[in-house]
Amino acid sequence: MSKLTDVPKRILIGRALRSDRLGETLLPKRVALPVFASDPLSSVAYAPGEVLLVLSVAGLSAYHFSPWIAVAIVVLMFTVVASYRQNVRAYPSGGGDYEVVTTNIGPRAGRTVASALLVDYVLTVAVSISAGVENLGSAVPFVVEHKVACAIGVIVLLTLMNLRGVRESGTLFAIPTYVFVAGVFTMIAWGAFRSVVLGDEMRAPTADYEISPEHPGLAGFALVFLLLRAFASGCAALTGVEAISNGVPAFRKPKSKNAATTLAMMGLLAVTMFCGIIALATATDVRMAENPARDLFHDGVPLGSDYVQHPVISQVAEAVFGQGSPLFLLLAAATALVLFLAANTAYNGFPLLGSILAQDRYLPRQLHTRGDRLAFSNGIVLLAAGAGVLVWAYGASTTRLIQLYIVGVFMSFTLSQIGMVRHWNRLLATEKQQAARRGMIRSRAINTFGAFFTGLVLVVVLVTKFTHGAWVALLGMGFFYALMTAIRRHYDSVLEEIAAPEVPGDDMVRPSRVHSVVLVSKVHRPALRALAYAKLMRSDSLEALSVNVDAEETRALHAEWERRGIEVPLKVLDSPYREVTRPVIEYVKNLRKESPRDVVSVIIPEYVVGHWYEQLLHNQSALRLKARLLFTPGVMVTSVPYQLQSSEAARRRARKRANWAAPGSVRRGPAERSKDSSPHT
Amino acid sequence: MSKLTDVPKRILIGRALRSDRLGETLLPKRVALPVFASDPLSSVAYAPGEVLLVLSVAGLSAYHFSPWIAVAIVVLMFTVVASYRQNVRAYPSGGGDYEVVTTNIGPRAGRTVASALLVDYVLTVAVSISAGVENLGSAVPFVVEHKVACAIGVIVLLTLMNLRGVRESGTLFAIPTYVFVAGVFTMIAWGAFRSVVLGDEMRAPTADYEISPEHPGLAGFALVFLLLRAFASGCAALTGVEAISNGVPAFRKPKSKNAATTLAMMGLLAVTMFCGIIALATATDVRMAENPARDLFHDGVPLGSDYVQHPVISQVAEAVFGQGSPLFLLLAAATALVLFLAANTAYNGFPLLGSILAQDRYLPRQLHTRGDRLAFSNGIVLLAAGAGVLVWAYGASTTRLIQLYIVGVFMSFTLSQIGMVRHWNRLLATEKQQAARRGMIRSRAINTFGAFFTGLVLVVVLVTKFTHGAWVALLGMGFFYALMTAIRRHYDSVLEEIAAPEVPGDDMVRPSRVHSVVLVSKVHRPALRALAYAKLMRSDSLEALSVNVDAEETRALHAEWERRGIEVPLKVLDSPYREVTRPVIEYVKNLRKESPRDVVSVIIPEYVVGHWYEQLLHNQSALRLKARLLFTPGVMVTSVPYQLQSSEAARRRARKRANWAAPGSVRRGPAERSKDSSPHT
Repeated sequence: MSKLTDVPKRILIGRALRSDRLGETLLPKRVALPVFASDPLSSVAYAPGEVLLVLSVAGLSAYHFSPWIAVAIVVLMFTVVASYRQNVRAYPSGGGDYEVVTTNIGPRAGRTVASALLVDYVLTVAVSISAGVENLGSAVPFVVEHKVACAIGVIVLLTLMNLRGVRESGTLFAIPTYVFVAGVFTMIAWGAFRSVVLGDEMRAPTADYEISPEHPGLAGFALVFLLLRAFASGCAALTGVEAISNGVPAFRKPKSKNAATTLAMMGLLAVTMFCGIIALATATDVRMAENPARDLFHDGVPLGSDYVQHPVISQVAEAVFGQGSPLFLLLAAATALVLFLAANTAYNGFPLLGSILAQDRYLPRQLHTRGDRLAFSNGIVLLAAGAGVLVWAYGASTTRLIQLYIVGVFMSFTLSQIGMVRHWNRLLATEKQQAARRGMIRSRAINTFGAFFTGLVLVVVLVTKFTHGAWVALLGMGFFYALMTAIRRHYDSVLEEIAAPEVPGDDMVRPSRVHSVVLVSKVHRPALRALAYAKLMRSDSLEALSVNVDAEETRALHAEWERRGIEVPLKVLDSPYREVTRPVIEYVKNLRKESPRDVVSVIIPEYVVGHWYEQLLHNQSALRLKARLLFTPGVMVTSVPYQLQSSEAARRRARKRANWAAPGSVRRGPAERSKDSSPHT
Repeated sequence: MSKLTDVPKRILIGRALRSDRLGETLLPKRVALPVFASDPLSSVAYAPGEVLLVLSVAGLSAYHFSPWIAVAIVVLMFTVVASYRQNVRAYPSGGGDYEVVTTNIGPRAGRTVASALLVDYVLTVAVSISAGVENLGSAVPFVVEHKVACAIGVIVLLTLMNLRGVRESGTLFAIPTYVFVAGVFTMIAWGAFRSVVLGDEMRAPTADYEISPEHPGLAGFALVFLLLRAFASGCAALTGVEAISNGVPAFRKPKSKNAATTLAMMGLLAVTMFCGIIALATATDVRMAENPARDLFHDGVPLGSDYVQHPVISQVAEAVFGQGSPLFLLLAAATALVLFLAANTAYNGFPLLGSILAQDRYLPRQLHTRGDRLAFSNGIVLLAAGAGVLVWAYGASTTRLIQLYIVGVFMSFTLSQIGMVRHWNRLLATEKQQAARRGMIRSRAINTFGAFFTGLVLVVVLVTKFTHGAWVALLGMGFFYALMTAIRRHYDSVLEEIAAPEVPGDDMVRPSRVHSVVLVSKVHRPALRALAYAKLMRSDSLEALSVNVDAEETRALHAEWERRGIEVPLKVLDSPYREVTRPVIEYVKNLRKESPRDVVSVIIPEYVVGHWYEQLLHNQSALRLKARLLFTPGVMVTSVPYQLQSSEAARRRARKRANWAAPGSVRRGPAERSKDSSPHT
């Protein structure tokens, strides 16, 4: 069964799971953590740097505020984690923020959250890949010299992998994530040991630089505003926390409890790493600036546009482990890999969210079908194109992309927590049992605080970042919102139009007879087969129809018809302008006019070939005729396919496609078995 | 009926002919001449210049050879015209070179001619438009300063006009062509009068320049080679002469005689104009060079890259009429317009040749249908793209494009004349009557001389121009030849595969029963209609089939089914992975496996909407299912369309499209009425 080419793939990502074995794979916590946490954990690779960067606007002295900002982010992280632990318990179905908000607040808020999430997926890809390239670039200078090209290269690679249908595997996530986490913790521990015990003076590569503040001596309201902006940038560390709430069905039982525990573990890890990196950055005198070329000086000389500002995590690693040391290189590689995995989670999430939205008729219905390669492909290509444009437009700069990033996240956080508060209110209205009530009241309190706090952050983010780029994200959300509204309106109006009447036949003329027409051009196997099938159908009348495009061919057709004694009458339509479509359409319309209660069944023999370019050589008139006939009322159009030998190739391809594995299956958990899964008759 | 927007169009091109009035429009000679002759007549606008240009390589003294080259071209023109008068008489059907060669030499030679003609059509557009822009540029400097952009602009304009379906009208051709011819004759006459009678010394704007010859003092073989190259370039004057032989059916009766007369008139006009312009150029001391920037000097200083070399016809007109005089401007405008019309003839010829080639199964069959908008559109876009690329690649330089141009023309001339010789040989083998034999022997002699002469020119063109660009044209022909061969091979193999067996049923299992399956997802009007139609068909068994993608929807479907008491049994297929296609395909395959002699009829309700973007929201699973079902043997696939209100818009558009007028109808003459045009039953 397996081919030779599968071997490298299997080495790379582990043995592929067969689709029907999907139901057996449930994730233990130690695998679920890396699968769901690569996104939030990886953000500690860029979030601390963004905080320092913003603070530098007020000069080096403002760096002293960084521990306070770290504390605020830790509090926020605990709040969000505690809030989502309630979500996970209340919605073990894995509906996520969209389901919570739609159910508890309403469809408009639901669409808002969905728009925010869609934009966020695009930004996750753009930000994570840009950050990954920057981290890789701290070890491999070539990468950072061709930043945009490398970032787009990674996007293309991820896109191709996902289009081909690479299945997520626990191992694929586990190894780099655990290496990354272990590396950061080793760094923090070794740094603390060197500093406290050995008394080493560790110095970051940028420690000797001076910062020329854009606004020196900032104070009062302006300083508060700057601190809030720094805090808002640091909130990037919280992106992806909600992922687990979408993935509860993938956990082993007890699902909700395990998911909640994993969420707590993830929060703890992220917070510790974030604070450790900030602490090390302070200890090693890392210097970062928003405009390093202009605002960073060495011996009084500005560094100039050639200077590449490396991420804070790599500067700290250099200080602790030493430039070019194996541990430094390992950490840089693991960081980049985890960031690319974080981007890959968006490739899984985007089409899955699309399928849920399609189910609610906000997106084209065909996206609804799970594991439908084509639907997923469209989503994947759309996501990649969006991320590619952003990366290109923002020069693959994490700092510039971050400005767009956090709006969507906190919009869905806030709405989700408001939804949860309503959820508990509704339950409390009916719940009588005291113990249960107490639990609900506690949960409601947590969610209320979560809603309040994340709402506050949302306002801070909007106010401090609107002009810096958040407006682009809002524009994107507006686009998705309008699109979904329009699609839903269209589906609703169609639904109304096609709704079956209560009294049968109140507007439909009951058809009385069928007049079958077989289109023939020559007496060949496809035509004979179509005639044979048509005869079997026993319609009220049956005739063969040909269009006289070429007088000689028509004569030959007549002669052959008689010679073979085919008993179906042959009618030939004249077509002075060698058209096929119009004469047939007009003939069919006339038939209908003569007896309006009859149905005309047009039967078209079709060749089936194996390649699209062969397809171009056949059936084109048939296709156009079919398209036109569909607009003619009272007609049914039947294709009788005749499979040519070359069609075997296409059948093989189709079979292969059918075994394609949709991305995101692992994190989504096994498909819900429907309650009535036995075939009905 | 007519809209306001039609008015400017009608002013521009005269009242459009209705498709069914096409049969009444036959061309009198005075209209046929401009319709068919714009291409060959317009080439006198650039051919004389090309001759001088090549001669300049050997220095100013070589200009003295120009009358001899003109004589050679006149002889050649008479030969070609005389030869094609035989074609017109022998083939009044308007088959043209392709028919003559295929009938008399064979399919390979036919394909060669067809390839040459296709390439030639592309080059006609590129060369004529470039020359037109250069002529317009002699009056309007802006145009020549943005030569490539203007040329591509004209291509886009012509393409849009032809895609919209602007019908050729005799008047459209007659006015600019007759103005152009009258202008050139006036110029020649007035120039001769001024020079001979008044004794004026007319001087071209370039008369004072000196030429620095690339190869001064060329002699012997090298000089002969140069003269041959100049002759080959001058042969551009002969392009398009064969057009009349394609258009015989468009002439009034006696068709062949009128066509032959028109051909002679055209030859005479072209030759006179060509010689007159060469004579005036000599008299007014026009100076042209292949590389004017380098090789033309004024007072010993090279003119440099800013210098724009105007076409010889405009330089002569300037000398005769005076720069900026009304007659000069009128002639420049008429020249440009005639050249654009010449380009337009290719827009008509390319798809028509395509339709003939499609009839012989060298190109996709759908091109065969005359007046089929889509088929014509493909040809038009292909032609425009090819010409656009050439214009862009060669900087809209007539001189550089001419190098590619003449190979194809003389390839088809030569093969056509060889074919005619064979034609007469074949007739002479059976003809007994002396008078007829004498005529045939005379015709054969003319065609033999024609074949010999044009063959010689072909060799000269190939030898002198191969490295200058003719290889590009040969490459293009090779591409078309290979494509046509491959397409024909495919069709032949399919034809063999589908040929009906002589003994009926020798390999086809005679189907015995039909099992009908109606796909339903909800109980709505489209589904009810499909069920009603399916019941009418009285197949051996009938059931409704649904795929359980969503347990709740399936339950609702069951309930509704029972509530309405629909008597067709409902079967529900389970689909744990929310797929639609696979369960249905497998179910159908199983049905076939159980009773292989049965046919399965799958009936699919379809929504019909009005816009492509609405279409994206519907039927996608149905479309994919249909595509897969076509690969399943023993299946017939029926669409039962349900027209939504918005589909009315699409029906209107389709009706409008159906009234589209294909380009080239006038020159092609009315369609052959088939001999048995009454409907048969």
